[in-house]
Amino acid sequence: MYTLPKRLGAEFLGTLLLLAIVIGSGVMAENLSEGNNGVALIANTLATVFGLYILIEVFGPVSGAHFNPVVTLSMVILKRQAASEFLPYVAVQLAGAFFGAILVHQMFDMELLQFSEKARTGWGIWTGEIVATAGLLLVILMAKQERVSGMVACYIGAAYWFTSSTSFANPAAAFGRQFSNSFAGIAPADVPAYVVFEIIGGLLALVLYKAFSANESVTTSQAPNPAA
Amino acid sequence: MYTLPKRLGAEFLGTLLLLAIVIGSGVMAENLSEGNNGVALIANTLATVFGLYILIEVFGPVSGAHFNPVVTLSMVILKRQAASEFLPYVAVQLAGAFFGAILVHQMFDMELLQFSEKARTGWGIWTGEIVATAGLLLVILMAKQERVSGMVACYIGAAYWFTSSTSFANPAAAFGRQFSNSFAGIAPADVPAYVVFEIIGGLLALVLYKAFSANESVTTSQAPNPAA
Amino acid sequence: MYTLPKRLGAEFLGTLLLLAIVIGSGVMAENLSEGNNGVALIANTLATVFGLYILIEVFGPVSGAHFNPVVTLSMVILKRQAASEFLPYVAVQLAGAFFGAILVHQMFDMELLQFSEKARTGWGIWTGEIVATAGLLLVILMAKQERVSGMVACYIGAAYWFTSSTSFANPAAAFGRQFSNSFAGIAPADVPAYVVFEIIGGLLALVLYKAFSANESVTTSQAPNPAA
Amino acid sequence: MYTLPKRLGAEFLGTLLLLAIVIGSGVMAENLSEGNNGVALIANTLATVFGLYILIEVFGPVSGAHFNPVVTLSMVILKRQAASEFLPYVAVQLAGAFFGAILVHQMFDMELLQFSEKARTGWGIWTGEIVATAGLLLVILMAKQERVSGMVACYIGAAYWFTSSTSFANPAAAFGRQFSNSFAGIAPADVPAYVVFEIIGGLLALVLYKAFSANESVTTSQAPNPAA
Repeated sequence: MYTLPKRLGAEFLGTLLLLAIVIGSGVMAENLSEGNNGVALIANTLATVFGLYILIEVFGPVSGAHFNPVVTLSMVILKRQAASEFLPYVAVQLAGAFFGAILVHQMFDMELLQFSEKARTGWGIWTGEIVATAGLLLVILMAKQERVSGMVACYIGAAYWFTSSTSFANPAAAFGRQFSNSFAGIAPADVPAYVVFEIIGGLLALVLYKAFSANESVTTSQAPNPAA
Repeated sequence: MYTLPKRLGAEFLGTLLLLAIVIGSGVMAENLSEGNNGVALIANTLATVFGLYILIEVFGPVSGAHFNPVVTLSMVILKRQAASEFLPYVAVQLAGAFFGAILVHQMFDMELLQFSEKARTGWGIWTGEIVATAGLLLVILMAKQERVSGMVACYIGAAYWFTSSTSFANPAAAFGRQFSNSFAGIAPADVPAYVVFEIIGGLLALVLYKAFSANESVTTSQAPNPAA
Repeated sequence: MYTLPKRLGAEFLGTLLLLAIVIGSGVMAENLSEGNNGVALIANTLATVFGLYILIEVFGPVSGAHFNPVVTLSMVILKRQAASEFLPYVAVQLAGAFFGAILVHQMFDMELLQFSEKARTGWGIWTGEIVATAGLLLVILMAKQERVSGMVACYIGAAYWFTSSTSFANPAAAFGRQFSNSFAGIAPADVPAYVVFEIIGGLLALVLYKAFSANESVTTSQAPNPAA
Repeated sequence: MYTLPKRLGAEFLGTLLLLAIVIGSGVMAENLSEGNNGVALIANTLATVFGLYILIEVFGPVSGAHFNPVVTLSMVILKRQAASEFLPYVAVQLAGAFFGAILVHQMFDMELLQFSEKARTGWGIWTGEIVATAGLLLVILMAKQERVSGMVACYIGAAYWFTSSTSFANPAAAFGRQFSNSFAGIAPADVPAYVVFEIIGGLLALVLYKAFSANESVTTSQAPNPAA
């Protein structure tokens, strides 16, 4: 078990790099794709899938590799993480998300501090965000531990395309992406609703997980908790 | 062993999500790809491969992760599934497929109930559908259990491109896709023939499987049945 | 150990499907990509990588999953396969390759019997074909057995792009692709040179393999022979 | 343990093939993609990810599969490699990188000896190169040994997109790519700064690695050293 400072360091650095990957690959993709957003989102998807797999592999053994307040919340609800660690985890996730956006702007010679103007709102997109987050949590909770990194990465790769919200599925991601007026951005005014529907999606996943896993003979053969 | 209601729940939810992934990523891909259907099908392929892998991993231990009446039929023929479970399995697969289409329309602000106008017919495409389904079943039957999720996903990724029918290979998929007038749709009038040729493909796979596996020393080292 | 007829059946069916995947995905990709051959080759690459992985997984335990006369030749040279089986293996590989092309034409409503008009010749391309085949054989010979399917698939995925010949690396593939006047075709007049340089590449790989593997402590921890 | 000449042979051949893959797939991608550099970089990315995975799998057991002076330097600093082997390793890596470029030009009928005119300079790109190299080393040092090949490959696949420098992350790559006036090239005048910032990134990774791994109970369960 790692000390709390080390785990918080891993959550900070991991979330920073996750946002750098999501936003940075979006900037590069938009720069190169001559206005074909299909090509840009394919590139954004591949970079995110590859990067998320790596980040969970590298930081999973340290902090559980949540990088996501809804994941931490679920672990607290399931008593796999101490409730007292919830706020510190979320604080460093948000801080990491912010600095991930800043790092991208430094790398790509953009204004360091900026705000997105991309509207992402409406019941269609909100339904998408519920589905996206419910799916993510269900994957995390039902995955075999040695496959969880690849499964989360592949899930997000699918959800970028099949949900109308392009699957943020993560309040820290929504928080960080408002600070970049680029391909992956979201207008600050649209962040709160995203967070609400992400939490709803997470709770929905807990209900589904309980429904499927209330089965003695199965819970023992599952080991879905990288954080405990 | 999970109870039948749980297994039916897994087949319903898994088929719903499978269709949501296939149809939803098609909608997103068509929206973004500026008329280049090559780009759109690459996106549709990646989303399907990633999503199918996840769905089989998540629901495989619960219900066998068929999501497909031809797969269930084969398992019954091979006596790996009770014949009495065939109709319940197929019923929830079809219901899941229908609601997967509806969910996509809700997420993307489209008319909830619609019918595809995309013609998919003719001997070329029907041959493609026989090949697609035969290949899918052969992969499922000959795969090592711990690799079956990735293998089915990769197989469909290849078959989207090398078969002329873009490989539905699944009567529940054909059923659900008629309810979406989008990239992945199929006109209702063309569904029955698809189902017939998918069943033919499935039976062909059983013949090939028997031909290769009638070998004592091999059957013991193979464990291709996620449903038993 | 499977009987020879079963192994020949696996080589026939596997090579047939390999060529169907390579040629068929090329036809589909060219139809959809609006003249952007970069998009078409990305699609062709993904389909080939996914398909090759599956074919080696499915047929590897039966026949070794050569699908390639240069691979069979190498196995005979290394005494991992009986010399008497060389000609039968090559015969069914060539027959499978031919019928793979025919199957594609049936699926895509094309003239069943046709000949490619695509010139593939010159020292640049021939150098590419030596490199492509040497690399393929080196990967097969040095791979750990449980990873060989994915490694061969990934290798070909890279070689489609980094060799100037788009990496046929297989005399049976060259033979079959001459029968399709489509994206993946090769003019019949250019096939013999391809075969010669593929054999040269294969022999080069054997030399390199011997150079690296002549090391007692290592050969025991390597198990690179799917055919024995 | 392999003899030094064999290990140097593996580093030479591996770095040669790595550069052939990176540069060659760039040439092919640019030739085919009709000016859409998004499509070209997706192709370049897939070829590099597939190829790097293979090269580390094949040559890792022989030489550690560094192919990169910063990796070798880190291994020397961590006392996992003899300091006396540093210069020989770097010498064959640079020679391999040079001949990788030459091989590409031979395969694609280009002028064998050429110099890139592509400017890659400025604080944005340099920051990108620090991030790229720090991330690469952190992945190598923290990966479980049986996953290191796939993880390095996926990391580079992400870093091609999320860093502004397209992630050379390797002085040997920078050295070799100056000899090709093509998609993956770099003007010779810009190479020295790349090397400096790559070394800075590597040292940064060592600091981070020490910070996370100074934990007795963890170091034993980690086996991140393919070179020892």
